[in-house]
Amino acid sequence: MTITKRRSRRRRGGGSADTVQSPASVASPYVHRAMPHFSPLAEEDLLRLEAQVDWLIEVIGVEFREDPEALDIWKAAGADVQGTRIKADAAMIRELCAKAPSQFNQLARNPERSVVIGGKNQVFAPVYGSPFIRDLEGGRRYGDIASFEKLVKLVQMLPSLHHGGFVTCEPCDVPVSKRHLDMLFIHMTCADKPHLGAITEMSRAQDSVDMAEIVFGADVMAENCVIMGNVNTNSPLLVDKVVTEAIKTYCGRGQGIIVAPFILSGAMGPVSTAASIAQALAEAMMCCAFAQLVRPGAPFVLGNFLSSMSLKSGAPTFGMPEPVVSNYVVGQLARRLGLPLRCGGSLTAAKTADAQAGYESADSMHSTMMAGANFVLHSAGWLEGGLATGFEKLVMDADRLGSYQKVLNGLDVSDNAMARDAYAEVEPGGHFLGCGNTMANYKTAFYESALSDSENVEKWEEQGSKDMERRAYERWNKMLETYETPPMDQSKHEELKAYVDRRKSELPDAWY
Amino acid sequence: MTITKRRSRRRRGGGSADTVQSPASVASPYVHRAMPHFSPLAEEDLLRLEAQVDWLIEVIGVEFREDPEALDIWKAAGADVQGTRIKADAAMIRELCAKAPSQFNQLARNPERSVVIGGKNQVFAPVYGSPFIRDLEGGRRYGDIASFEKLVKLVQMLPSLHHGGFVTCEPCDVPVSKRHLDMLFIHMTCADKPHLGAITEMSRAQDSVDMAEIVFGADVMAENCVIMGNVNTNSPLLVDKVVTEAIKTYCGRGQGIIVAPFILSGAMGPVSTAASIAQALAEAMMCCAFAQLVRPGAPFVLGNFLSSMSLKSGAPTFGMPEPVVSNYVVGQLARRLGLPLRCGGSLTAAKTADAQAGYESADSMHSTMMAGANFVLHSAGWLEGGLATGFEKLVMDADRLGSYQKVLNGLDVSDNAMARDAYAEVEPGGHFLGCGNTMANYKTAFYESALSDSENVEKWEEQGSKDMERRAYERWNKMLETYETPPMDQSKHEELKAYVDRRKSELPDAWY
Repeated sequence: MTITKRRSRRRRGGGSADTVQSPASVASPYVHRAMPHFSPLAEEDLLRLEAQVDWLIEVIGVEFREDPEALDIWKAAGADVQGTRIKADAAMIRELCAKAPSQFNQLARNPERSVVIGGKNQVFAPVYGSPFIRDLEGGRRYGDIASFEKLVKLVQMLPSLHHGGFVTCEPCDVPVSKRHLDMLFIHMTCADKPHLGAITEMSRAQDSVDMAEIVFGADVMAENCVIMGNVNTNSPLLVDKVVTEAIKTYCGRGQGIIVAPFILSGAMGPVSTAASIAQALAEAMMCCAFAQLVRPGAPFVLGNFLSSMSLKSGAPTFGMPEPVVSNYVVGQLARRLGLPLRCGGSLTAAKTADAQAGYESADSMHSTMMAGANFVLHSAGWLEGGLATGFEKLVMDADRLGSYQKVLNGLDVSDNAMARDAYAEVEPGGHFLGCGNTMANYKTAFYESALSDSENVEKWEEQGSKDMERRAYERWNKMLETYETPPMDQSKHEELKAYVDRRKSELPDAWY
Repeated sequence: MTITKRRSRRRRGGGSADTVQSPASVASPYVHRAMPHFSPLAEEDLLRLEAQVDWLIEVIGVEFREDPEALDIWKAAGADVQGTRIKADAAMIRELCAKAPSQFNQLARNPERSVVIGGKNQVFAPVYGSPFIRDLEGGRRYGDIASFEKLVKLVQMLPSLHHGGFVTCEPCDVPVSKRHLDMLFIHMTCADKPHLGAITEMSRAQDSVDMAEIVFGADVMAENCVIMGNVNTNSPLLVDKVVTEAIKTYCGRGQGIIVAPFILSGAMGPVSTAASIAQALAEAMMCCAFAQLVRPGAPFVLGNFLSSMSLKSGAPTFGMPEPVVSNYVVGQLARRLGLPLRCGGSLTAAKTADAQAGYESADSMHSTMMAGANFVLHSAGWLEGGLATGFEKLVMDADRLGSYQKVLNGLDVSDNAMARDAYAEVEPGGHFLGCGNTMANYKTAFYESALSDSENVEKWEEQGSKDMERRAYERWNKMLETYETPPMDQSKHEELKAYVDRRKSELPDAWY
């Protein structure tokens, strides 16, 4: 296991435009943050939250159901196991969590795209799990495997997405029992970014690590994280076998696991952001401790997915102030635990890529980014509370992710940035456009957005008065025309294909 | 002059919904922030920026043109005056800036709407100065006085806008020489929030303070800030008589002034965010020092309006990462100076209230809000780089301002917020919706957005598949139907009317 404890390389400056990159020019496989973290909570308040976490672990406990082996593991570790309820000494849980690396590498099959998860590093991945897709011309419909492939190709081409995620949409035209195989094959052959694997059923998780082994080889895989699973607990305070089996399968093979309690405050947690934060932490820490019992040192990402709801309709809301605050606070708590954090995303309840989608996604993602989230699922393409993947939304969000990357570079206060020479050239009331300092620096001075229109209204009207959604539609269609399959060793490609064919022939078509 | 040095009242909790408020129930006339400030820059970097500010003041200097009296004031203060170039000992300028109050009250004619500017207080005002307006049905057109009145009424009704601003759109159908009188009359009679006055010409500034005196009375005005002017320097490093005369007129009468250098990096400042920040600070500090020479203790707001530009077209861009970073940094620098700060806003280059408008405005305003900006002009309604006021944009932004207010409340970690009783009621895997703790707290738990649709897609389609812009159009039209004129003493109303009539008869119609 290669655990990077500190990475000194800093990626400063540079207008990291969200232009389509060629596989040969990977500017920035992930964000290494120069901007310091924002730590809004005072020590006293942090201690109150941590005391609540400990109280949940020690007094209330967490249910581990459907997996007797998990109970045995807890018993062997000395936890208080009553039926399926696990209570434990919080100090013991914290000690176990401390065994997880504070940061680790996830290798990509293209080494230039490998990422570091944890510390000051931030990795953005697209939406995960939407059964529906939407695009401007095609409207809303069930996801299918052809759309899934298009989405994987777009993610591959968008430099601000560092990671492929996994279920970029549900390919609903492929049997549930087999679709993980197709999705894995597409991720592994149409893209060369790191990605996740299946978790819905133990054999599917097994297929994921087995196929990863074909790509990376057993030796590399024994020493490195090359694939991860992402699972949700059944909040409140319930962990089912999907979680424990995924932990055993991924961590058992030395691979990574992300455990994210999904809590709408008022439904799966108390109607209080503070209580929901503490509950999410307790659930994720119990899973981290379990993962460390399965394999000490297993890469673990502390997940958090917390949002509010409309108290008129009970519908989930996104991009609202409560999850914004929780992002900032959870960032601080995860740093105290020394665990890589997954939280937030470009989240919205909007049905289309309209202004609501823009406002909500930006507030959600701005706080996610500033909070220092190390791994961000749903950072692009999320619509409709996660029910739909938007093609326009995907490229729009990715454009903003490029902007966030620039924010995280912080402020350059070097001598060059002070530009004192410019004042010798430009008089008061003058203009800096043509001066030497500007000519020397303009190319990398500012983020160049691919989708924001800054033309004047006349020019914009001349060009067809296209709103951002329309421009995004044109952009993703144009991108797909220039997609190039990243090179792959032919024998590996064939071996993957053979694996998929074999497993498909073994598995029944099942639609549940 | 009433200078509040500390205000202990905290506005915590509460779902401060952006619903239409009646004049009798002013929940929150401004934001008192509980969330601590984010201070991204290290001491060393701050000192570098401040050294650059001092270098500009001492070595490069600032031009004060068109106002010989201003030069005399600088000479009398001991500055180095060569022609119109003012250089000064930076320590002297800092000492003068220290005479300005760190926070002050601006009275509204409705005392419940008076605001505190500075410290941990944050005041949101709408867009200022757009020659054009846009709404969904009427399209883009020149602003007119009827639209101006509608905008003032909407701002009056939106609780998240604490301040009326002034030129909410340019009433282009009224002669330039007279429109300030109509605008003042409308602010003073159709609304009872604090607002700004005219600055474009000295006599118009004079009319503004004279009309304010009618509203508040000479005695109150002698002891309180009841009106302010907002001016831009002519960056780089040039201050013209619009600024010095406005300072003399407003501060001379004990009223407040906001001076905001407007810098697009690469045009009115070097193509570097750090250099542009320092230049803006130098310009604004020189104006603050000047204001304190005119009247020691005059309320002064350190303005900052900094953005980037497209280096392909030279067009200004908004909501980009460079001004996001500068908002955070300027907040820190202003706090070190101990001066109230104006920066940021809900800024965008978008032509319509589309997703671009949403993303850019949110990133711009999120950073503005988190940076602790004490007075935020353009916090709602800004479109097209400030060229157009959007009716839909106004109510959409205001809805998000309500959300930001909730963010600034910070996290409640009280015993009630920990909700331990809820865990006695709800089992693992259970549901908190109906539990006692939820019933006791749900009403104020979450921000209830007026314009975000969180319904499922079926319900949303049933209701007409309206995007946020369409919903906003319906909202502002409906709001205007329920507008009520705030009460005003009849004699004051008549006196204001007589003042406007008299001045209009004295002034020629001029369209420049």
